[in-house]
Amino acid sequence: MTNKHEVLFSRVCIIGMGLIGGSLAKAIKHAGICNEVLGCDSSQSCIDEATQLGVIDSGFTDVALAIHDVDIVVIAVPVGAMATIFETLADHLPTNTIVTDVGSTKRSVVEEAKRAFGDLPENFVPGHPLAGGEKNGVNHSFRELFNGCNVILTPLPDKTNNEAVLLVKQMWQHAGAIVFELGVERHDEVLGATSHLPHMLAYLLVDILATNNKKDNIFQYAAGGFRDFTRIASSDPGLWCDISLANRDVIATMLDNYGEAVSLLAKSLMQGDRDAINGVFTRAKNVRDHLVLS
Amino acid sequence: MTNKHEVLFSRVCIIGMGLIGGSLAKAIKHAGICNEVLGCDSSQSCIDEATQLGVIDSGFTDVALAIHDVDIVVIAVPVGAMATIFETLADHLPTNTIVTDVGSTKRSVVEEAKRAFGDLPENFVPGHPLAGGEKNGVNHSFRELFNGCNVILTPLPDKTNNEAVLLVKQMWQHAGAIVFELGVERHDEVLGATSHLPHMLAYLLVDILATNNKKDNIFQYAAGGFRDFTRIASSDPGLWCDISLANRDVIATMLDNYGEAVSLLAKSLMQGDRDAINGVFTRAKNVRDHLVLS
Repeated sequence: MTNKHEVLFSRVCIIGMGLIGGSLAKAIKHAGICNEVLGCDSSQSCIDEATQLGVIDSGFTDVALAIHDVDIVVIAVPVGAMATIFETLADHLPTNTIVTDVGSTKRSVVEEAKRAFGDLPENFVPGHPLAGGEKNGVNHSFRELFNGCNVILTPLPDKTNNEAVLLVKQMWQHAGAIVFELGVERHDEVLGATSHLPHMLAYLLVDILATNNKKDNIFQYAAGGFRDFTRIASSDPGLWCDISLANRDVIATMLDNYGEAVSLLAKSLMQGDRDAINGVFTRAKNVRDHLVLS
Repeated sequence: MTNKHEVLFSRVCIIGMGLIGGSLAKAIKHAGICNEVLGCDSSQSCIDEATQLGVIDSGFTDVALAIHDVDIVVIAVPVGAMATIFETLADHLPTNTIVTDVGSTKRSVVEEAKRAFGDLPENFVPGHPLAGGEKNGVNHSFRELFNGCNVILTPLPDKTNNEAVLLVKQMWQHAGAIVFELGVERHDEVLGATSHLPHMLAYLLVDILATNNKKDNIFQYAAGGFRDFTRIASSDPGLWCDISLANRDVIATMLDNYGEAVSLLAKSLMQGDRDAINGVFTRAKNVRDHLVLS
């Protein structure tokens, strides 16, 4: 199943030539699972760069032209730009062409696809590679980005074509990823908890500390723990606005619950309730040491 | 000032043979700034291990014996164990012997020293190396621990002996550290913001996620960002109970402020207030990119 040079697709089109799109292009070219990789991006300079870097075989700025004769379309644009792409696909997608995406939220993407197509196409396999970084852009792309990385697919039961799911799964496996399947809602809860919420908390912390310490750069004293803790606050704000709004029901509830836990810990501290504090810290350390891979 | 083999002290006594105490012993031995390093720990097996590893020249379990004829005492025990040490020092410390500590909070340490000595000794230089890690114990100690690390000293104006401050400063510089001076209160605010608060938030996040997802290990899907964000939740719970209680006024206020910011962001999300959300994220990214060294 993961043999090298097993050609899965004659022609792949990746829409969005950023870190994810560029890295996927490199990975599947290297794996030899397709004959040709086409790239599409609204920015001509981005396409020029991807072509010069040898990331893609040919490039387009027009989605309708790019998808003309391809076996699979991978939508690798930010969540906020997904709706427009679906509208074009709805008008121009060849029959039988598989579509997948890399969006960080899945309910919003599925809803947008439904809206554009009228009903969810059976060949659309919603997906999400849990990869990325603080450095975006095709110039930062590299084919090892997905090595050992988790990819979650959220096919809809009784709707999504199993063969399409299998092909998308194989594509990611050839790129080095470990593929899971989750329900759409569960994906958004899990990612809300393990990715969206931490991003909100990191952004909030850096912002509140900077706002409350304008006269003195307290960050100069920060140790390694602080740097690790706030690394995700360097993520792209526009991208994270889109993600947080797309999954806002889940995130807002989690923020409210978290806020209550914060208040409770403040109370426990002021009451000197060592048992309560120690309970939180000890449970957390056990989980962190045993369940979170490092 | 930082020449090798400039002997600053004939005999150094380090109380507490853990990661910090052990690493400091190794660093100052290597720098050649003292003739002899004595170690003291309430645990005999810890002293045996430190002696076998060559970390110290001789070891004691009795503080009064250990400090009998030394130039400087470095108290490298957790904040919660500091008071007992000061009481013994108050009875047995030789005149002119310098004392410094490595406690993560400074107001509580200064208060405990005052309580034990009646008044703060002029040769006591409160200090705090911003070093540590998830792995404690003398067996994890290494002499490079303080290389490039910040050490904050909080001498009291019109109280602490300048010569003692200078010697403690030089000791840390020889160990590879960068030394700052801050007021006691300011230290606790700065560390509350950049270290204590992030630890509370990381512990809380892991605990709340584990509690709310008992059936399913959601952490299996966590990406690198989550691992970095929660790394400090693997820190020693007992140590952090001590620290959080010792600096509880500062931390509880910060937690309350943070909790309000969390609620506000949840509201902005539900109102779809992109400007407010983008403001937080953009300000945070700018600060993180420009002010936090990585």
